[in-house]
Amino acid sequence: MTDAPRIQLLLTGDELMSGDTVDSNSALIARELASQGLRPLRRVTLGDDALALQAEIATLCDNADALIINGGLGPTVDDLTAEVLARVAGLRLVEHPQALDHLEHWCARRGLTLNAANRKQALLPEGCELLPNPIGSAVGFTVEHNNCLVLCTPGVPGELRAMLPHLIERLGERFPHRSQSDVLRLQTFGVGESTAQQMISDHCPDWPDSVGLSFRAGAPQLEIKLVIDDPALEPQRQACLDTLQHLLGAHILGRDDARLAERVIDLARDQGITLTSAESCTGGLIAQMLTQIPGSSDVFPGAFVTYSNALKHSVLGVTTDTLDSVGAVSEETVRQMVQGALKASGATLGVAVSGVAGPGGGSDSKPVGTVWLAWGDLQRIDTLCLHWPLERTLFQTMVAAAALDCLRRRLLGIEESAHYLRQRRVPKDA
Amino acid sequence: MTDAPRIQLLLTGDELMSGDTVDSNSALIARELASQGLRPLRRVTLGDDALALQAEIATLCDNADALIINGGLGPTVDDLTAEVLARVAGLRLVEHPQALDHLEHWCARRGLTLNAANRKQALLPEGCELLPNPIGSAVGFTVEHNNCLVLCTPGVPGELRAMLPHLIERLGERFPHRSQSDVLRLQTFGVGESTAQQMISDHCPDWPDSVGLSFRAGAPQLEIKLVIDDPALEPQRQACLDTLQHLLGAHILGRDDARLAERVIDLARDQGITLTSAESCTGGLIAQMLTQIPGSSDVFPGAFVTYSNALKHSVLGVTTDTLDSVGAVSEETVRQMVQGALKASGATLGVAVSGVAGPGGGSDSKPVGTVWLAWGDLQRIDTLCLHWPLERTLFQTMVAAAALDCLRRRLLGIEESAHYLRQRRVPKDA
Repeated sequence: MTDAPRIQLLLTGDELMSGDTVDSNSALIARELASQGLRPLRRVTLGDDALALQAEIATLCDNADALIINGGLGPTVDDLTAEVLARVAGLRLVEHPQALDHLEHWCARRGLTLNAANRKQALLPEGCELLPNPIGSAVGFTVEHNNCLVLCTPGVPGELRAMLPHLIERLGERFPHRSQSDVLRLQTFGVGESTAQQMISDHCPDWPDSVGLSFRAGAPQLEIKLVIDDPALEPQRQACLDTLQHLLGAHILGRDDARLAERVIDLARDQGITLTSAESCTGGLIAQMLTQIPGSSDVFPGAFVTYSNALKHSVLGVTTDTLDSVGAVSEETVRQMVQGALKASGATLGVAVSGVAGPGGGSDSKPVGTVWLAWGDLQRIDTLCLHWPLERTLFQTMVAAAALDCLRRRLLGIEESAHYLRQRRVPKDA
Repeated sequence: MTDAPRIQLLLTGDELMSGDTVDSNSALIARELASQGLRPLRRVTLGDDALALQAEIATLCDNADALIINGGLGPTVDDLTAEVLARVAGLRLVEHPQALDHLEHWCARRGLTLNAANRKQALLPEGCELLPNPIGSAVGFTVEHNNCLVLCTPGVPGELRAMLPHLIERLGERFPHRSQSDVLRLQTFGVGESTAQQMISDHCPDWPDSVGLSFRAGAPQLEIKLVIDDPALEPQRQACLDTLQHLLGAHILGRDDARLAERVIDLARDQGITLTSAESCTGGLIAQMLTQIPGSSDVFPGAFVTYSNALKHSVLGVTTDTLDSVGAVSEETVRQMVQGALKASGATLGVAVSGVAGPGGGSDSKPVGTVWLAWGDLQRIDTLCLHWPLERTLFQTMVAAAALDCLRRRLLGIEESAHYLRQRRVPKDA
């Protein structure tokens, strides 16, 4: 075996072949493997067809040191992985006591009786080892066939994600001596992939080849990765990181999996500050992003979704004069919304948004994508108008994130205005 | 050749193997093929490695009537498709006059001079036919090899989408007589995949083989698909559909892409009813699901996120007596929350939730996953206690959906209590 193990992926599911589901699991697996210096060579995707799966698995095992199978572990008749793999490996399908135990506990915690469909999930190839599933009913498992380690994982993305540490551990035992590439991930908000790329090309013509640079555009965050293949290259990477920090400044949220809402909550907790939101076009999404974070109740008493003008007036005290004269999507309205939310919630710091999410409701003076934000405390409120003509759901996501980012910048004491999603002015000495 | 042509897909690109890019092109192609009664059998994804691509293309052509290659048509050195395919098919690589013409026009429209990198895109296998690219510089093309029609398409999703009509036309000429499979999709809420499967196994031992049954578990909805390969089988499918409607009853939300929030909004609009929510553990998610739907402002004036007990009292009027005696996660609290939200918003119908999302905050009497719901109008309020010990984000999603489902059932006049996510009692005459 050479230094780099040959790893293949097999994805199964009719929904993947029909186009009903976009396969995000492969990327999840590949990124996790990359963090360990491993890389899949090839992947094959097939529908729920037992004969085709059987032939494919046999061929894949002949041409791989490890085969990761994703999907087909569920309770239904179209979940075929265990059965087909047992046939390929010449193993009997037997009820696995530990898997049965997992299923019984899983059902009991939900007040369910274990039925035959669920019980099928404990029928596994004889002698297999389990990969624990901390979330779902389907256990994963590994089987050895023809010197190939076969690892079976569930298709539900949340369950796969929860199982990946166990999968990585098993691969680590099997392939201990591999070249380690080391990935440093930065999370950013408010700067686009092509803008970031262009800034780096313009200002770093001598970026070293030894420090790999790549981007992953998510909504709302953009991840930037710096990869080195040898620990000795750490000083070069540190120099690149300094350059990025100079170019991107406060757009950088943090390292690894840093999330905007988590950053805001941690900063508020450290400073003994409580938070609220007054939301029109985001419809509760700012509050929802905050409350996704465990422990958010420490700093978040609550929020107000005032979608109609009547509620902006009755709940938050926006004056009818303001609503009649300048309208709901205006600087004066969001200013009064945040004041009203601070008073009604007793929170120290708040943010308000009002905009035109579309597709309807736009006008010449306030086209779809226009949004006003206001944030601050009872002493000082700042405002900002953005124009992001995006598809409705993406607009809501990006605007809610911008609102959180305004809170983050205030909590960090950053006075410079944010330049969102357009060419950031590069500091003069760059 | 059998009735259904064997179509395979080959996706190329290092970014697909590293996980930096999620492959949405396969789903795009598959859905377009499905609209023509065509279905890819299998797909293979590979990095930008000339030798591996050459071997793969040769094998795929031996096992397919058509091979769709996506990616590798760009101007850079890692774009290998034309070169490798020419080698496999034993064709020379020549400058294609029509492709060169396209490139010259493409550059001229942008005020660019045709450079060597772009000119490389006109080097194609001799005798190939073009697939026009209405958007980008990379032309597509088709080659015949070993009785397999090879169709090469660009990896940029917008360019692929623009080229798909030409690809479909070419496939239509090649495979004119194909069987049309027809998919009927049902959306459901509140019943798990294994429960649905078990109910069907128990109550429909004579389910016909000619009506394909499959499931797609999303959060929060479960999709059930009934597939027939011949329009003459429609009566059999209708009988299966009747059975499912009998077994699943009000768990069925509707057909095709029916969404819970959209259903609630449509029903409320038809009945001239307005909606509100009072949210603790869902943190604004119910409001956010409603406001994701365009036109939700017709029926949704706003909502209240009362995360702290203080706000449950000051904003919604939950009495301190209640909060002190039975606590925030109780029937009496959610009852008062919905009453308070109805009064403060002026809405006709409301829903309130209060629960323990976890991971912290549970107790023996109210473990993590416990949630109380109340819904109704000022005349009648119903309540329900659920225990769903799920991961925090999934818990919030499922509870928000259950809240919307309670509103949907009320709007539909369904009096029977919902049986969520456990074995539903089957109607007596089943």
